[in-house]
Amino acid sequence: MPIRVGVIGAGVMGADHIRNLSTTIGGAKVTFVADLDAGRAAAAAPPSARITTDPTELINSSDVDAVVVASHDSTHAGLVLECFEAMTPVLCEKPLAPTLLESLEVVAADADIVAATGASLLSLGFMRRFDPGYVALRQAVQGRVQGEPLMVHCVSRNAAAGPGTTSELAITNSAIHELDIIPWLLGSPVTEVSWQAGKQTSRAEPGLQDPSFMTLRTADGTLTTLELYLNAQYGYTTRCEVVSEQGTTSLQESSLLGIEQDGTRQAVIPADWRPRFADAYRLQLQAWISALAGGEAPSLAGAQDGLNASLVAQAMIQSLHSDGTTTKVSYS
Amino acid sequence: MPIRVGVIGAGVMGADHIRNLSTTIGGAKVTFVADLDAGRAAAAAPPSARITTDPTELINSSDVDAVVVASHDSTHAGLVLECFEAMTPVLCEKPLAPTLLESLEVVAADADIVAATGASLLSLGFMRRFDPGYVALRQAVQGRVQGEPLMVHCVSRNAAAGPGTTSELAITNSAIHELDIIPWLLGSPVTEVSWQAGKQTSRAEPGLQDPSFMTLRTADGTLTTLELYLNAQYGYTTRCEVVSEQGTTSLQESSLLGIEQDGTRQAVIPADWRPRFADAYRLQLQAWISALAGGEAPSLAGAQDGLNASLVAQAMIQSLHSDGTTTKVSYS
Amino acid sequence: MPIRVGVIGAGVMGADHIRNLSTTIGGAKVTFVADLDAGRAAAAAPPSARITTDPTELINSSDVDAVVVASHDSTHAGLVLECFEAMTPVLCEKPLAPTLLESLEVVAADADIVAATGASLLSLGFMRRFDPGYVALRQAVQGRVQGEPLMVHCVSRNAAAGPGTTSELAITNSAIHELDIIPWLLGSPVTEVSWQAGKQTSRAEPGLQDPSFMTLRTADGTLTTLELYLNAQYGYTTRCEVVSEQGTTSLQESSLLGIEQDGTRQAVIPADWRPRFADAYRLQLQAWISALAGGEAPSLAGAQDGLNASLVAQAMIQSLHSDGTTTKVSYS
Amino acid sequence: MPIRVGVIGAGVMGADHIRNLSTTIGGAKVTFVADLDAGRAAAAAPPSARITTDPTELINSSDVDAVVVASHDSTHAGLVLECFEAMTPVLCEKPLAPTLLESLEVVAADADIVAATGASLLSLGFMRRFDPGYVALRQAVQGRVQGEPLMVHCVSRNAAAGPGTTSELAITNSAIHELDIIPWLLGSPVTEVSWQAGKQTSRAEPGLQDPSFMTLRTADGTLTTLELYLNAQYGYTTRCEVVSEQGTTSLQESSLLGIEQDGTRQAVIPADWRPRFADAYRLQLQAWISALAGGEAPSLAGAQDGLNASLVAQAMIQSLHSDGTTTKVSYS
Repeated sequence: MPIRVGVIGAGVMGADHIRNLSTTIGGAKVTFVADLDAGRAAAAAPPSARITTDPTELINSSDVDAVVVASHDSTHAGLVLECFEAMTPVLCEKPLAPTLLESLEVVAADADIVAATGASLLSLGFMRRFDPGYVALRQAVQGRVQGEPLMVHCVSRNAAAGPGTTSELAITNSAIHELDIIPWLLGSPVTEVSWQAGKQTSRAEPGLQDPSFMTLRTADGTLTTLELYLNAQYGYTTRCEVVSEQGTTSLQESSLLGIEQDGTRQAVIPADWRPRFADAYRLQLQAWISALAGGEAPSLAGAQDGLNASLVAQAMIQSLHSDGTTTKVSYS
Repeated sequence: MPIRVGVIGAGVMGADHIRNLSTTIGGAKVTFVADLDAGRAAAAAPPSARITTDPTELINSSDVDAVVVASHDSTHAGLVLECFEAMTPVLCEKPLAPTLLESLEVVAADADIVAATGASLLSLGFMRRFDPGYVALRQAVQGRVQGEPLMVHCVSRNAAAGPGTTSELAITNSAIHELDIIPWLLGSPVTEVSWQAGKQTSRAEPGLQDPSFMTLRTADGTLTTLELYLNAQYGYTTRCEVVSEQGTTSLQESSLLGIEQDGTRQAVIPADWRPRFADAYRLQLQAWISALAGGEAPSLAGAQDGLNASLVAQAMIQSLHSDGTTTKVSYS
Repeated sequence: MPIRVGVIGAGVMGADHIRNLSTTIGGAKVTFVADLDAGRAAAAAPPSARITTDPTELINSSDVDAVVVASHDSTHAGLVLECFEAMTPVLCEKPLAPTLLESLEVVAADADIVAATGASLLSLGFMRRFDPGYVALRQAVQGRVQGEPLMVHCVSRNAAAGPGTTSELAITNSAIHELDIIPWLLGSPVTEVSWQAGKQTSRAEPGLQDPSFMTLRTADGTLTTLELYLNAQYGYTTRCEVVSEQGTTSLQESSLLGIEQDGTRQAVIPADWRPRFADAYRLQLQAWISALAGGEAPSLAGAQDGLNASLVAQAMIQSLHSDGTTTKVSYS
Repeated sequence: MPIRVGVIGAGVMGADHIRNLSTTIGGAKVTFVADLDAGRAAAAAPPSARITTDPTELINSSDVDAVVVASHDSTHAGLVLECFEAMTPVLCEKPLAPTLLESLEVVAADADIVAATGASLLSLGFMRRFDPGYVALRQAVQGRVQGEPLMVHCVSRNAAAGPGTTSELAITNSAIHELDIIPWLLGSPVTEVSWQAGKQTSRAEPGLQDPSFMTLRTADGTLTTLELYLNAQYGYTTRCEVVSEQGTTSLQESSLLGIEQDGTRQAVIPADWRPRFADAYRLQLQAWISALAGGEAPSLAGAQDGLNASLVAQAMIQSLHSDGTTTKVSYS
């Protein structure tokens, strides 16, 4: 029998999850969709699914075996805790919660469930962990194919920042991907960070320093650099180059077609993260559903990963507010 | 309810289809697997599926809504005709049949069913039609983004030819992909072909001229060239460049990682067709299952496409046997 | 003492040669420039050089040690023969002559000089032989780095054909580069050729079939293909891929800068042959001057190479006029 | 008449200069070569040139119009001052001098000559300013093709550090290229810098932190990052990416040939800086000689550029010794 999934939030992310669950992965069926806007829920849901504006109704419905939380960040912690109460497995989009306090609360509740049942109910949507490029990069790094990693260079560019994005939200919402993927890639926690401003683009709203430049030191000594540029205009770019003792390995930015026209050789750059990480989202959902169907622990990021990334983000924000001083990450 | 699929043939292709149907696409479930080698069938089948060495039992089973034929080429026509008798939708791996006579028989039977029911039961596994690169290339060509297409250059290289491959089988088994994809890409049938030998590689078995070089003229006047090289050693390559009035558009050969090591910049080349066309096989199966589930006609290649490709192959073999003379394709 | 060079023809090619001889190579000085248009000659010549509208005056001047012929193709043979009479070394732009008859005459006169003096006076401007990419490609092929070459794929595209270019001139003026470089690359003469039309671009003048597609068979059995497209619009492209037993080696189309802008990754494509082969022209001139200064035989193409290329061109034109029939090349 | 050049130092760099001056640029002739090792001088010098172990003899020789200083760094300042005394134009390899004190002395002497004669005698060998890629990049940046530059990412990797290289010498000898090229590229002086260690490679000698990571802030606000890795093993890499308001422009790492072999697509990476910057050295020498021949001021870097780069290097070393603290550059 397919896993019957309820999806909370039918915005861009939620609608993508619903489409994937219904058409591009095996073993699942969307039975319930909740959104404050019932019309939006209906538009995204398959015909056979129930619709509600009340997520609590969905979480506690007998038609739902598992829940995807893709609603606004501010709702994540509360909805996850409700799922815990209903003992329902939940895949929550990152971040775990906008504030550390809420993250800590969820981690604690999750720990209680693990203590009681031996298994976590929570999977966190750091989908890059399922991107075939990052997966292959991690295999190469952890296999020490080129010896010890010494430095990692990351670049993360969006075409345009979301309205109201501040320098802090740029860290908690965008850089958060690197703050999770680097410790995952290197198998070593971030110990200290630093933040610097690039020259300010005229395109950034007040309150957002853009671009910004960050460094992360992990416990294994590797130094990672990250350029974050949310108003890059030209398109969406994610780069990750691992510099090791005997060589370098980096994600390839590929495109379907090569074009020669008007005096230039061209390749299309994705406009946003969705085409770039379409495989990652699909493979992440498939891993989650297959694990639930097989009664195994999903291999997705968990509550502690979400908390760790938030703690690194907090240290980065501290550095931002202290003139770029290198700041330790405190995990206690 | 998921479409219950029976898979005939649990070799490389069949096992891939079973894995896809069970884990990476939505709306399907493998309920029955047939192979002459019961052990091979059991090894490939999900635990819940029935096993048989008798494909007829599978085709006529009440546990099966649709059939995938991935057995030896020589069995394709017979099994498809059995499916027709059982009025069961069937996805048959290319080629439709090794001989024209069998292809004609299947096309005729298919036409009878269409006449009787208004819909075909047969979909043919020319999976390249679902490769995201070819799909994007076709959109660009048919959208005349760069004006009229004037020439197309194709390259098709395998690391090593299958045992017993002859110059003729190279055409009916390997070049057959281009003989189908070019008319599909250009929206115009192949009218004439020519065949030439490259210098013979010392790696080819007797009976196989390798590499070979072919040209196809389509009704729209476009000239397509194809290098087919089955013992290329270094890996698997598929190239397709459309040269139009204002520019060129070509498939990009991408790899997950870029590597710098030992004095060279490197990117991995797939060893065979499976990693290169993994998306195509998955998307093709998903399109077939979604169409069956939705009661629509699948958008896959059909019987006539299979026959057309075989007729072009026949003309190519004629050219091969007539010193490369340009040979008309007869569709009557 | 620098070699004092007289340049006949101050058009695009002649002016480039004058600039190179004066500023970017060692051991030469332009002392005399001839052009039917004295103004054009003066504009191209260095201040210290003499100007004339009479090439014979230049050839026989005591201020000239060596002559570069860069005037209209139709004048090549006559001027070369005058240089022979004046026993003056001459670098003549390709082609040797527009007609076979004239080529044969020059080759005979050259042979007489070689018989009399032990050295040829004539070097022919097939500059691709000095292009660092072709040089490296030849080293790899002749070093059998990847085993026996089996096929070669060439592409030669201009943005726009010269006014009055016919299908025949496209062969004698443009394809002539490949008709020379392939035997040089493989170390094996062309034995047979074939010509086919692509679909006609609406941009071609009457009398020019564009694009066209040619094959060359060399004595070593290798099959070379050549797409020639003179109205490609988008820019200038030269490709050469050698397909061998263990792999492929191809010229890289490089550009100085990689650009990300407006949703695409871009690299500039040269507008015409001059930036693409700037190094080749400079290195060719340097090799000629250094050989003359050192009293050695220049390593440039010679009279026989020019004749050979013309004989292959003649066979190709024959194929063009005989419906693409594969046509033997006659060197006798 | 060609400019008669004396070359001091016939090591790797000196020998390259001698070869270029003699064979690949116009308007020059090597008449005198000095090296402590007379044998090495003779091996590098053209037959017609005089040889000495005494550079003072060369500087004051009537056979010498201009001097190239390519001897050990420690000799640069003294030899340049001797050339000033002999009123002989001099091209000195970078760095201007190993110590600031010596640099200041040379700058002062140069200023006196400029005051007295209206022209400087000194050109400094920051050859990257003549690399066609950097030149094109500068044109794009200064032409604001993509709007304001906001960040620049540089990578500089050697296969192996020179014996005895310390963290400080890595800055004054290797990073010095970026410390010069960034202000030249952006048209804005460096105002502050910071230094961080990457994880240490097991290949580095004691005293050398490798790799290291540096940032430069220029007066225009642009933040530049530089990874310097001297024991990268795999080859020589120079990268420079300018991130601007509307897009990015970066140097392309090109190679002559593309290779497909053993399951990978490969391109050769230069083993060291010489093939990578061969054009730059040739074009720099040609610009110097052409300027001297034409009585114009050479467009090469000058004394002040050398001093400026040394002052930035000094600040970087200060940051290195103060735990990476961001350190102002003082130009007074």
